[in-house]
Amino acid sequence: MRTVDLIQRKRDGEELAPEEIEFLVEGYTNGDIPDYQMSSFLMAVYFSGMSDREVSRLTECMLRSGDTVDLSDIPGVKVDKHSTGGVGDKTSFIVAPLAAAAGVVVPMMSGRALGHTGGTLDKLESIPGFRTDLSAEEFHKQLSELGLCFIGQTEHLAPADRKLYALRDVTATVESIPLISSSIMSKKLAEGVDALVLDVKVGSGAFMKKQVEARRLAQTMVGIGRRMDKKVQALITDMNQPLGYAVGNALEIMEASQTLQNAGPTDLTKLSIELAARMIYLGKKAASLDDARRLAEKHLVEGSGYRKFKQVVTAQGGNAQALDKFELLPNATGMREITSPRGGYVSSIDAEDIGVASNMIGAGRDKKEDSIDPAVGIILEVKTGEKVDAGSVLCRLYYTKEDRVDEAADMVEDAFSLSPQKPEERELILEVVG
Amino acid sequence: MRTVDLIQRKRDGEELAPEEIEFLVEGYTNGDIPDYQMSSFLMAVYFSGMSDREVSRLTECMLRSGDTVDLSDIPGVKVDKHSTGGVGDKTSFIVAPLAAAAGVVVPMMSGRALGHTGGTLDKLESIPGFRTDLSAEEFHKQLSELGLCFIGQTEHLAPADRKLYALRDVTATVESIPLISSSIMSKKLAEGVDALVLDVKVGSGAFMKKQVEARRLAQTMVGIGRRMDKKVQALITDMNQPLGYAVGNALEIMEASQTLQNAGPTDLTKLSIELAARMIYLGKKAASLDDARRLAEKHLVEGSGYRKFKQVVTAQGGNAQALDKFELLPNATGMREITSPRGGYVSSIDAEDIGVASNMIGAGRDKKEDSIDPAVGIILEVKTGEKVDAGSVLCRLYYTKEDRVDEAADMVEDAFSLSPQKPEERELILEVVG
Repeated sequence: MRTVDLIQRKRDGEELAPEEIEFLVEGYTNGDIPDYQMSSFLMAVYFSGMSDREVSRLTECMLRSGDTVDLSDIPGVKVDKHSTGGVGDKTSFIVAPLAAAAGVVVPMMSGRALGHTGGTLDKLESIPGFRTDLSAEEFHKQLSELGLCFIGQTEHLAPADRKLYALRDVTATVESIPLISSSIMSKKLAEGVDALVLDVKVGSGAFMKKQVEARRLAQTMVGIGRRMDKKVQALITDMNQPLGYAVGNALEIMEASQTLQNAGPTDLTKLSIELAARMIYLGKKAASLDDARRLAEKHLVEGSGYRKFKQVVTAQGGNAQALDKFELLPNATGMREITSPRGGYVSSIDAEDIGVASNMIGAGRDKKEDSIDPAVGIILEVKTGEKVDAGSVLCRLYYTKEDRVDEAADMVEDAFSLSPQKPEERELILEVVG
Repeated sequence: MRTVDLIQRKRDGEELAPEEIEFLVEGYTNGDIPDYQMSSFLMAVYFSGMSDREVSRLTECMLRSGDTVDLSDIPGVKVDKHSTGGVGDKTSFIVAPLAAAAGVVVPMMSGRALGHTGGTLDKLESIPGFRTDLSAEEFHKQLSELGLCFIGQTEHLAPADRKLYALRDVTATVESIPLISSSIMSKKLAEGVDALVLDVKVGSGAFMKKQVEARRLAQTMVGIGRRMDKKVQALITDMNQPLGYAVGNALEIMEASQTLQNAGPTDLTKLSIELAARMIYLGKKAASLDDARRLAEKHLVEGSGYRKFKQVVTAQGGNAQALDKFELLPNATGMREITSPRGGYVSSIDAEDIGVASNMIGAGRDKKEDSIDPAVGIILEVKTGEKVDAGSVLCRLYYTKEDRVDEAADMVEDAFSLSPQKPEERELILEVVG
């Protein structure tokens, strides 16, 4: 088997055999296949795509390239949730406790912020004392006892994906549906879950700008799950404005805490209930999806989800009091109000711009090595469809350093579009796949 | 400027600015841009193509990456001919002397055999004593005195192309019209020519299998010439059977010698006259193309082209007597006749198969390091359209080692297709571009 022939066949739109995909992934991981051949293969995949069979084998090879977590000794169905990344997306802190409160085992392995969207681990670490670097034993023990644990993905999980991703990042081959799908699924399936709920974001603040692309991504991931005997469901949800009002690490923890106390924004609450319900349903803790929705709502209203979250925070070394007393969380020192230049209806809020502006003032990182400022971020005062007057506050920037506040303020102001007519209401949950 | 952004823009079908192409070629040549980024860029070019402006700048950058030959002190228009490579293509040894006999200055820089087509330098070196490794001074002197010199391309000519070609070869990015065009043209234009006649082969024995692709390649190369103020004309010619009857190094020299004595095959003679005429016309040695054709024919019929070739062979250390006395050329020791299994008309002769079979018995090389056997090859006895009986000789294999003769014989036999009806005659010269 010659690598150049496999590149050529993929370039010419042919389907590669499972053992050919294996040859490529193994050869690349162990260094037999050089970067320059893999990068031209990846670009050929970008243009020619991959069949379901190919993408499943690619996922399997990457999954098998490293450790896999064995959770079979913990009774019950293990269910995780994964979002493709949105601005203000703090659903993990709401849905995981709700599902766990309903008896689902939720091994939640997450990543860090990179690009314009935040990272689950970074947000959690804004809670004083919270540890995400648990040992495998600690993780296992907590999952058995509390049914929920938040942890980072180790380097030993799908190292082939790690190596491929680093190459894709510098060769303009990130934006490929089979490559994105296999990257996500190889890591998620290596975590030892039985089922997975996916939140595929679409819109200005998401990686996928069009619903047709988001659908293809969702279908591909659901297909990979099916071929590997895992139950996978995907929601395609709108990311044409930030989710909820808060963007930034500690700010999002505050909003998640409020939402778990049934005092959160409507959109965030609605999406969280739906995601939690699907985790509960796939986790076999309800006979129907409607029952699962009722169960999720009950755990929200009765506060059992919130209590579960506090237990988990405490177990992972965090100060759970900070979830009630926000002054115990990192707080910004400066605030800037962005006001509306004129009256009208808010017709859209560019979520990517809000995310980028929030990163500018320190909430995110451009490079892996950058440190983040947990206190800073943006809180929207209005959302799409609301009426504002000239001079009304659109949002507030919270910062600790003046450095790039002016630049961020300009960007945020431009993110809001106003129209004289009330815009049509947009659906939050657009589609279900799987 | 970031390389990854340029890859992405090319991937997305955008046109890159001249300075961006320059950044890529220079960065790659001096090692700032790694192979893995360039190979993904090349694959993006394979799919997205290049505009005329891009391909011209790419050619110019590769040309300027190394030495360029200055022939301005030699009076007259300098004209070269280049063929994209065919089986049995020995026109260089005929057209160059004919054009030189008519007063055109012909600095002919050529390559070696690689793949299923032969190399001009290898063929010339089958003449005992013939040297192609002349110094720049020797080259210059001979060109001034005789108006014709055959020489190999040095490593200093277009080194960027050399580095890029080596990468394309292992990343399945050879078959791209802008990349092929710029590779050919950068080397040819570095030779200091004023005009260039291209012979773009199309058919089973050529790189381009379809006329529409050959036309695009021809148009691209003619366009590059135009933008760089060089006169370029291209003929698109049929390569659905070998040109002439002889395939193999010394065998092709013999046939070229016969053709220069006006005793060669009809197809080879016809194409040689047309190519020589265009060189004479672009070289301003005739007022019209028709005058140029008459001049080329005159030099063929009167033998002045043949005398010019002998002068050049002598000047480059070769034994010119060998062009009359073929026993002085390397001769094979074994011969195998391939006979027709049944009667009928020869409907096609797969030129690629003939080329590959000829290489099998030693006429070509698979790898750069391989040595070739100048004596061996194949001589066709019939060509497309001719009638054969069962048992008639289709061709003869000439070899010096038995090793792969059986395998080659099978391949050659399969190369001939027979049909009960006389096939329609195929045009040799299909199109003129430029």
